[in-house]
Amino acid sequence: MTMFELSATEAIEKMRGGAITCAELTDACLERIEEREEAVQAWTFLDADVVRAQAKALDENRAAGRPIGPLHGLPVGIKDIIDTKGMPTENGTVLDAGRVPNTDAVLVSQLRSAGAVIMGKTVATELAYFAPGKTHNPHDPARTPGGSSSGSAAAVAAGMVPLAVGTQTAGSVIRPAAFCGIVGFKPSRGLISRRGVLCQAHTLDTIGVFARSVPDAAMIAEALAAFDPQNGQTPRPTPPLLATAESEAPVPPSFAFVKQPAWDRADADTSDGFAEIVELLGEQCDEFPLPAPFDQALEIHHLIQVAELAKHFSGYVRKGRDQLSEKMLGAIDEGAGILASDYLAALDWIGVYNAGLDEIFDRYDAIITPAAPGEAPADLTTTGDPAFCSMWTLIGVPAVTLPLLQSANNMPLGVQLIGRAGDDARLLRTARWLALKLSQAT
Amino acid sequence: MTMFELSATEAIEKMRGGAITCAELTDACLERIEEREEAVQAWTFLDADVVRAQAKALDENRAAGRPIGPLHGLPVGIKDIIDTKGMPTENGTVLDAGRVPNTDAVLVSQLRSAGAVIMGKTVATELAYFAPGKTHNPHDPARTPGGSSSGSAAAVAAGMVPLAVGTQTAGSVIRPAAFCGIVGFKPSRGLISRRGVLCQAHTLDTIGVFARSVPDAAMIAEALAAFDPQNGQTPRPTPPLLATAESEAPVPPSFAFVKQPAWDRADADTSDGFAEIVELLGEQCDEFPLPAPFDQALEIHHLIQVAELAKHFSGYVRKGRDQLSEKMLGAIDEGAGILASDYLAALDWIGVYNAGLDEIFDRYDAIITPAAPGEAPADLTTTGDPAFCSMWTLIGVPAVTLPLLQSANNMPLGVQLIGRAGDDARLLRTARWLALKLSQAT
Repeated sequence: MTMFELSATEAIEKMRGGAITCAELTDACLERIEEREEAVQAWTFLDADVVRAQAKALDENRAAGRPIGPLHGLPVGIKDIIDTKGMPTENGTVLDAGRVPNTDAVLVSQLRSAGAVIMGKTVATELAYFAPGKTHNPHDPARTPGGSSSGSAAAVAAGMVPLAVGTQTAGSVIRPAAFCGIVGFKPSRGLISRRGVLCQAHTLDTIGVFARSVPDAAMIAEALAAFDPQNGQTPRPTPPLLATAESEAPVPPSFAFVKQPAWDRADADTSDGFAEIVELLGEQCDEFPLPAPFDQALEIHHLIQVAELAKHFSGYVRKGRDQLSEKMLGAIDEGAGILASDYLAALDWIGVYNAGLDEIFDRYDAIITPAAPGEAPADLTTTGDPAFCSMWTLIGVPAVTLPLLQSANNMPLGVQLIGRAGDDARLLRTARWLALKLSQAT
Repeated sequence: MTMFELSATEAIEKMRGGAITCAELTDACLERIEEREEAVQAWTFLDADVVRAQAKALDENRAAGRPIGPLHGLPVGIKDIIDTKGMPTENGTVLDAGRVPNTDAVLVSQLRSAGAVIMGKTVATELAYFAPGKTHNPHDPARTPGGSSSGSAAAVAAGMVPLAVGTQTAGSVIRPAAFCGIVGFKPSRGLISRRGVLCQAHTLDTIGVFARSVPDAAMIAEALAAFDPQNGQTPRPTPPLLATAESEAPVPPSFAFVKQPAWDRADADTSDGFAEIVELLGEQCDEFPLPAPFDQALEIHHLIQVAELAKHFSGYVRKGRDQLSEKMLGAIDEGAGILASDYLAALDWIGVYNAGLDEIFDRYDAIITPAAPGEAPADLTTTGDPAFCSMWTLIGVPAVTLPLLQSANNMPLGVQLIGRAGDDARLLRTARWLALKLSQAT
């Protein structure tokens, strides 16, 4: 295994033991980027000198015996909509061309405090909505990497960085992670602070992470979890994600296989793959039909998303309507026509759906369901269908996708697990159990 | 002083010392109600047997040496929009005639746990909006008591109960307290739980209390303050309100005299009275002009109020549109036409205004401003003008009104003090200081 392929937890271990330095690790990543960036196009900003300076300082701190953070020496990619001091943060739109924040988003400060190397900024779709950026799928350049966290997912999948951060308002973490064949983790609403991150839809926007293993995702999410009353979401206590994820479940976990609304969009690879998993899990897995009210969840999600983005993006419309994509303008115009009373009524469903899921989580450790209807589309004008993610973002429950299936075209397919809101640690433990189980089975 | 005139803190003291029993106190209140109810019409439900049974049980508990709550033996009136187990709670509308909740609102449970006697239900305007109920002003039956917590204010002012609970969405605690010549206290948003209380406008609805002295208001508010994450507002820690209110300020407090938006509605009694107070306070008081953005606060408050009530009251429209008042229907129809993007933009001002007030609270202990433009109108078809309260409800800062001025007609005028959000205890200490200062001055 070459150095760029090391998982984050492996790399941390090797740096701790002195087997490698942060400078060596980042150089390996920079070389890998050099090698793959032309085909993948994951980055909007990357300055090798800035990266090497951080690595040098971190190695010096370690050598001097100074305090070492939980991510000390690990390169992390940051989605272009997350403010990063001194690095262009252009929110995926030419309307923010040349925008360089003079403060870090809370999560970027946390990464720096934890000892991470801020590798650079990764491609986001336009304003984190559906108009694609320049990124290609690392497994097949003719295919979309998914979005809106396109560059973060592709960079981790291509071995350019072991970790990256993104955001999900509909399916922007889980879907690109699934399309790119890596682990994506969208924690419970409120676990990671959004201050300093572009606000698209404040009810829905959730920070998520990309990694190549469940413990890696747990490690960075734990470093980012924070009680921030100014986050604009109900703060959550910080759970011990990594230790729990790596612990043994007291009994083998149980799964509720859920055919989500829009299940008819699932392709044959996906439905066949899930039939096999369900069979393999045997008594540990039951199919659980969602009650009828969940059928409206995608419409409710969409109404809230466009109503809120119409408000939050009104400044962009004033600044340069003609420089926004048709997709973006369509959503803004649709959202601008929504009545407050319909919007407020839609918000009520979040509580209803959470209560509805309690029945499942009282009986099962996790819901198991596809991350997307199928493989990454061979179409660079789309980022694919978020239909299998949006409902969980709406409800605010934690979701993780694992690259455990493959399509007939040898493209990755994601297996998505959903946990109870606030129960992120258990979800990651269950995810690690499933990843081990299915890798043994193959 | 006859027994019904005792303040809550005095009555508590006498019951603790054995000088009076809860049964005697409640009988004195029942007699007072008997005497004044025909003229005042404060109650929608009052059952003397239910009251006496509670008093008897409380006296027995005390005699038996059982644990005694902070309000042990004190009669409290409960606004008709607050769910009370086994008592009709009709929300001020015939559409809820005969509605008897089978659970208590959180605050009613808290009152019971604290040892209060739930005296009965007090008149609210229709759905806590502007269509008056049957209540008259105890000082002059031709005048409104104010609203929407009309019965709670009038009952305390008439000596029927030492304490009562109400709610404020625009000016529904401070205004009736001022019109009726008592102390009204609207704490910081989120201090007292709203679970089990009619939701009119969830961003604005705030529980408040009525009493005849500042320590009395502090005592009941402290008993009701609760960390309730399900309240739907950001929870606040419970501060020691009573002890702080009764403590000496380390230095004499300073006041910012604010002429609110709509100041041109203030009548001569009010503006003259405030000129005198400002003069009397001398160097302790400066006039502080609010920055221009505050001029829009009343419009922003109104937009949020009607947008939210249109959503929350849509069920009442379906149930019986023709049984709602014109005022109510006008507000619902107006609110139903508001766009989500305008509503969301209006919400942003809350943070802006809070930041704007910081400049004042960094320099002054409290804002001093009238509670209403003038005395209670001699018109029973209105509940008066909430214009001097709504802005503070929107911002979520604590407000207290003190009956320290009189009109030329010998009607009470309220002096309103406003504190920094979360700094309720200091506000009450400042209020007590001012009440003592002005009573010494007269």
